Amino acid sequence: MVDMRFSLQNDSVAKGHRPPVIGITMGCPVGVGPEIVLRFLTSAVERPGPAVVVLGDGSVLRWCARQLGLKATIVAWHPGMAVEAGVVPVLELSQLAEQGSDTPLSWGRPDERTGRAMARYIEEAVRLCLAGDLAAMVTCPIAKSSLNRAGYRFPGHTEMLAALCGCEDYGMMMAGRLLRVSLVTIHTSLASVAGRLNEAEILRLIRLTHRTLRRDFAMAAPRLAVAGLNPHAGEGGLFGREEEEIIGPALRAARAGGWETTGPLPPDTVFHKAAAGEFDAVVCMYHDQGLIPFKLLHFRDGVNVTMGLPIVRTSVDHGTAYDIAGRGVAACDSLAAAVHLAGEIAANRERFDVAN
Amino acid sequence: MVDMRFSLQNDSVAKGHRPPVIGITMGCPVGVGPEIVLRFLTSAVERPGPAVVVLGDGSVLRWCARQLGLKATIVAWHPGMAVEAGVVPVLELSQLAEQGSDTPLSWGRPDERTGRAMARYIEEAVRLCLAGDLAAMVTCPIAKSSLNRAGYRFPGHTEMLAALCGCEDYGMMMAGRLLRVSLVTIHTSLASVAGRLNEAEILRLIRLTHRTLRRDFAMAAPRLAVAGLNPHAGEGGLFGREEEEIIGPALRAARAGGWETTGPLPPDTVFHKAAAGEFDAVVCMYHDQGLIPFKLLHFRDGVNVTMGLPIVRTSVDHGTAYDIAGRGVAACDSLAAAVHLAGEIAANRERFDVAN
Repeated sequence: MVDMRFSLQNDSVAKGHRPPVIGITMGCPVGVGPEIVLRFLTSAVERPGPAVVVLGDGSVLRWCARQLGLKATIVAWHPGMAVEAGVVPVLELSQLAEQGSDTPLSWGRPDERTGRAMARYIEEAVRLCLAGDLAAMVTCPIAKSSLNRAGYRFPGHTEMLAALCGCEDYGMMMAGRLLRVSLVTIHTSLASVAGRLNEAEILRLIRLTHRTLRRDFAMAAPRLAVAGLNPHAGEGGLFGREEEEIIGPALRAARAGGWETTGPLPPDTVFHKAAAGEFDAVVCMYHDQGLIPFKLLHFRDGVNVTMGLPIVRTSVDHGTAYDIAGRGVAACDSLAAAVHLAGEIAANRERFDVAN
Repeated sequence: MVDMRFSLQNDSVAKGHRPPVIGITMGCPVGVGPEIVLRFLTSAVERPGPAVVVLGDGSVLRWCARQLGLKATIVAWHPGMAVEAGVVPVLELSQLAEQGSDTPLSWGRPDERTGRAMARYIEEAVRLCLAGDLAAMVTCPIAKSSLNRAGYRFPGHTEMLAALCGCEDYGMMMAGRLLRVSLVTIHTSLASVAGRLNEAEILRLIRLTHRTLRRDFAMAAPRLAVAGLNPHAGEGGLFGREEEEIIGPALRAARAGGWETTGPLPPDTVFHKAAAGEFDAVVCMYHDQGLIPFKLLHFRDGVNVTMGLPIVRTSVDHGTAYDIAGRGVAACDSLAAAVHLAGEIAANRERFDVAN
């Protein structure tokens, strides 16, 4: 493994390839994005792995650094430029906090300008990833409402990325050191979950999760579990029949297609088993089934991974946190974990694609 | 606190009260009950707290000890008798494994006899608790099907206990060192949960949980959280309206009645907060909402506590485990935790009732 990696790297250099660069989109300029970006890029003197640049707004980062008393050397970056150590390299895509602006920015108060700017960071990151100028993108949080106000009609970040990539077969995984979960249904009421489950969609998520573990997490034979929907996985139909009528058939179809999978397992024990190392990921039927155990184990260092995109994208697992933006209390643990994982995924995927 | 405790104990002794005894019901005679009872009672040379006796079957315990090569001195016990150290004291309520029996017992194969016997252990334990001969009862697992086959028409253990006590205002709590959860709905399909929620039942569970924390867990001012039903607790109605229409009103009614409670909180973060010490218990809307985080943190040492009964009852949090019964691999951690907690609850409740 190590040998192949080195030979690949040498190969890239020999072909004149540039060393990999990861781009962080700054997210909403008046949320916690600028602060966690500064904290992350100024905290570690030596960071192993690929170089990291920001797609965002140097004037906002300077404004944020001034307000929080953070020392940061913010320099302009353009695709292809080498990245110096110890600086904050920024691809400048807006100038929202330039001196002399009529309407100064205010923490926690997004408007149409901030919405347009944050959408531009995302669009440019996708473009540079697709063009090979970035090896991966890591996203800071955005506010859906200001995205919509700026004229972008997407239900969320991930849907916007999928549309920009022209990708329909994508999905959401939350990844941590102890637990990985992927979700069949996401932002929908609990009462509507059962009605939204169908065999095709569960099968799609099983395959997507399998592929992600193989290609992005370098697992030759992923051990996948599928959670049931009901208490005790229905206990033979006593507490619901979705395990027998929907999830079971999806599992059999997955196995028949060569996607080895265990389940449907009782939801109240499968996560303990996965965290203990018995499974590499758990396919979950609904948001809280996966997010409750995930956030219990990975409250600070959880990473949101978009499965299925042609580009590598990870994200912090928290929101814009307008209530604490600019107050100097935001932690960059999730961003650090997201950058680290993006680098790993990019390297794994490159090796996988060369080998397959 | 310590002073009051000692004075109470002295007081009891002065009045001629006997030292407290905890009774373990042996559960299904061909499940893991006999094995975990033996393991627990023969493992610790000195066990702090009240004496522990078994309501069950000495012949089954001897048979089990022989098969598993466990050394155990099994002696007959009757209410009022002192309990010697280092023995397994049994109130004999059946003789299922007496030599010369026509149909010998077989691990994992319950029948009408075993069903009748295990029901008898429970009935006698309740009777002795109500009479003051036992300070608390701890139950080993039973099989509902063989309970029913023996003519006992209860959906489960807890419902049988409530009926024997003539109690209607009871509920289920899972208790561990890091997390306590109580459940508004339990054994029902996920699709039916939303339809079963109502303000009165949520209010009842909030009050019951509050009372249990005060009386049984010695908390003067319990900090209670109530989880929402939907992702992000509905996010202002985007993903369901139960938080606004049912859970919120129940919370306001609870507060108006003096039962201080926080919520409805997003389900994917409330358990982290509770485990970190911010809340003493979380009232949950459905089985897996509470059991997923609980079993993740307390897979081996979780205890099931029945709230609201006039007697003290705790239970192991696992089933009869017929697949491993008699194989010598069952762990008694949950039983040990259940006995320990039963002793604490009995002492707390006695102090509370004297003081209030």
